[in-house]
Amino acid sequence: MNENFRKYLVEFIGAFFLIFTIGAVTRLGVSGVIPPVAIGFILMVMVYAGGFISGGHYNPAVSLAAVVRGALPAYQWIHYSISQVLGGIVGAFVVNYLVGEAPDSSTMLFEMPALIIGEFIFTFALCYVVLLTATAKEVEGNSYYGLAIGSTVMVGAFAVGGICMAAFNPAVAIACIVMHTICCLKIALVTVLVNLIAGIAAGITYKAVNCK
Amino acid sequence: MNENFRKYLVEFIGAFFLIFTIGAVTRLGVSGVIPPVAIGFILMVMVYAGGFISGGHYNPAVSLAAVVRGALPAYQWIHYSISQVLGGIVGAFVVNYLVGEAPDSSTMLFEMPALIIGEFIFTFALCYVVLLTATAKEVEGNSYYGLAIGSTVMVGAFAVGGICMAAFNPAVAIACIVMHTICCLKIALVTVLVNLIAGIAAGITYKAVNCK
Amino acid sequence: MNENFRKYLVEFIGAFFLIFTIGAVTRLGVSGVIPPVAIGFILMVMVYAGGFISGGHYNPAVSLAAVVRGALPAYQWIHYSISQVLGGIVGAFVVNYLVGEAPDSSTMLFEMPALIIGEFIFTFALCYVVLLTATAKEVEGNSYYGLAIGSTVMVGAFAVGGICMAAFNPAVAIACIVMHTICCLKIALVTVLVNLIAGIAAGITYKAVNCK
Amino acid sequence: MNENFRKYLVEFIGAFFLIFTIGAVTRLGVSGVIPPVAIGFILMVMVYAGGFISGGHYNPAVSLAAVVRGALPAYQWIHYSISQVLGGIVGAFVVNYLVGEAPDSSTMLFEMPALIIGEFIFTFALCYVVLLTATAKEVEGNSYYGLAIGSTVMVGAFAVGGICMAAFNPAVAIACIVMHTICCLKIALVTVLVNLIAGIAAGITYKAVNCK
Repeated sequence: MNENFRKYLVEFIGAFFLIFTIGAVTRLGVSGVIPPVAIGFILMVMVYAGGFISGGHYNPAVSLAAVVRGALPAYQWIHYSISQVLGGIVGAFVVNYLVGEAPDSSTMLFEMPALIIGEFIFTFALCYVVLLTATAKEVEGNSYYGLAIGSTVMVGAFAVGGICMAAFNPAVAIACIVMHTICCLKIALVTVLVNLIAGIAAGITYKAVNCK
Repeated sequence: MNENFRKYLVEFIGAFFLIFTIGAVTRLGVSGVIPPVAIGFILMVMVYAGGFISGGHYNPAVSLAAVVRGALPAYQWIHYSISQVLGGIVGAFVVNYLVGEAPDSSTMLFEMPALIIGEFIFTFALCYVVLLTATAKEVEGNSYYGLAIGSTVMVGAFAVGGICMAAFNPAVAIACIVMHTICCLKIALVTVLVNLIAGIAAGITYKAVNCK
Repeated sequence: MNENFRKYLVEFIGAFFLIFTIGAVTRLGVSGVIPPVAIGFILMVMVYAGGFISGGHYNPAVSLAAVVRGALPAYQWIHYSISQVLGGIVGAFVVNYLVGEAPDSSTMLFEMPALIIGEFIFTFALCYVVLLTATAKEVEGNSYYGLAIGSTVMVGAFAVGGICMAAFNPAVAIACIVMHTICCLKIALVTVLVNLIAGIAAGITYKAVNCK
Repeated sequence: MNENFRKYLVEFIGAFFLIFTIGAVTRLGVSGVIPPVAIGFILMVMVYAGGFISGGHYNPAVSLAAVVRGALPAYQWIHYSISQVLGGIVGAFVVNYLVGEAPDSSTMLFEMPALIIGEFIFTFALCYVVLLTATAKEVEGNSYYGLAIGSTVMVGAFAVGGICMAAFNPAVAIACIVMHTICCLKIALVTVLVNLIAGIAAGITYKAVNCK
């Protein structure tokens, strides 16, 4: 199979499982400690499974950070992003079929400044951690990158899950529109934009702390 | 001791601990976050302990995926499966002796389409993760495969534990008959069948994303 | 410093932290998911910290299994055990000083057959996992042994914490006498004996599955 | 960029995320199992991300232990500490902006002997674990150091979170003044002092168990 198509397929599969898990654990009635743990660990699992093939991004903001850092050719960003968003949308439809209508999303009305800061801080953390643990030559071959990456999302969901979507990922934000777990399109679009800006910021920061 | 017998003994021991833990944590009265964590982590532990001897499958669906991928000789699948199922049945009898009658399993009445989809999705994920983290030459010698494999089952139990048995493993489904934690034989048999089909699907997918 | 004394000091320190944590999390009023997680993870931490110096046993049953497997000289077993028990007793006294009288231990009245089976099963699992992940030449230099070892105790506490002390460790059983968290001396002594027998059984099993 | 400035920037970023997470999870109304897990895992994440650049301390007590052990030049301790404290203070201000006034801190009135013992024991454990897992030549290149280090703080928060601040880190203690989550300056200053003494004690202990 074509080398690049294999990568896109892996990104599609990983994004599917990530968004399916997000939908299942937030809509089947569990709450508290379970959703952040489940979401962080499925990301970890998929990063370990697909990392050596595609990089295991499953997230257009992470792919953008990888482009800025020079770990992904710029022209592939759009292919990666489409694969990720498609995987997320398919995952969202399967959740919709399995568990029906989303619960009332009126609790998802966030204040805009807090939403922006919360999404920015942990999307930045996620991309910073991906670049330093999974793309730095100095730590090549380590076994901790997936644990570090998945745990960042778990902690982010614990820390700012009350003030923003805690998507940290444009593919997740878009899939939430399909799952009706977001109150309005505007919040999804702001989230997508903030996520991508945070990815660029993390790419630049990586160069500051680790480029000779 | 005979090289292959050592493998079957390891598979027997690991399946015993997996099913004993499943029975103990779901029947001694704990609920919520504990069963998925305990089940995922005992699988992780046994994968790390026995992985270098037998592959650490403890699951006929995983062994079938390994056959499809070419990591296990086809004739050994039946020996592996028998060892796994026997280990599970012994584990189930010990649970029965220690904790007596199972609680009323009337809550275990699942809708068939949801049961099939839920079991398929996470058994596929489990076998996909096993093949990519524990059998791919590119990541040989890594230290994360057990964590990735055990966590997949933990996340699966969180995500679809409400709509299916969340066995992801024919040996578990069969042991649940012994433990009377399943409402009818039909659900166990459908689960076994879906698990095996998902294992084959994961083996084929592995070849699509990682065979040159 | 004398090579062996360094090992005994590391065993003393690790056992101190293990028993201090057990005492603190079971007597300061927390319950449910926290004690097994805290106990399993402090064991993991201490195994990683001291493993390359002393083996990181902190447990006379594990040390006995290591003797049977040939990973520890027999004459050192008594030195290891004394260091471990002393570390545990000091930890127990610090807990007593910090948190005063133990709560009523009348809930700790176990049925003898269940106590024996529960302690045996998970002490065997613990020693089996230690030997296969931390002493097998085939997996030397791996980074997962501490995670596997600590998680075994965590899962054991979840699985059989309701039917036995879930000590899996003679040094813990003895320290529980000091902490008055055990209802009678007889249960502690039976636990110590069962733990040691399980260690021997695991050593023999290791030879069956991994000695050429 | 200047070699040392890169290190200080990494220490600043890591301390920012550590303190931001502490503030967010302890002030947004969650309780129980979540804060220790979130705090331990964000430390793990940042240790893995920055470890190969700056050592990933994020803690003046850890940096002091590293100086005693000979892993950090003494003159850099003050630069490390300033970076860590500044990162923490910025994190504290962002928390203040996002979540407003701290809850009533009257529950933070600790008894002085318990506070001193609790902070000492787990700051010692943290520094002991850092030196043995992240600076010992014998285990260079391992993938578990971040997991061990973060987990120590998680366990410490579970074990002694009821009797002291469970800061184990002068930068955290100082940031808590900014976040008003501490009842009086005296407790913060005693905590800082105890943390630093524990770091020195751990450095000396490391030399006893691992210097030839």
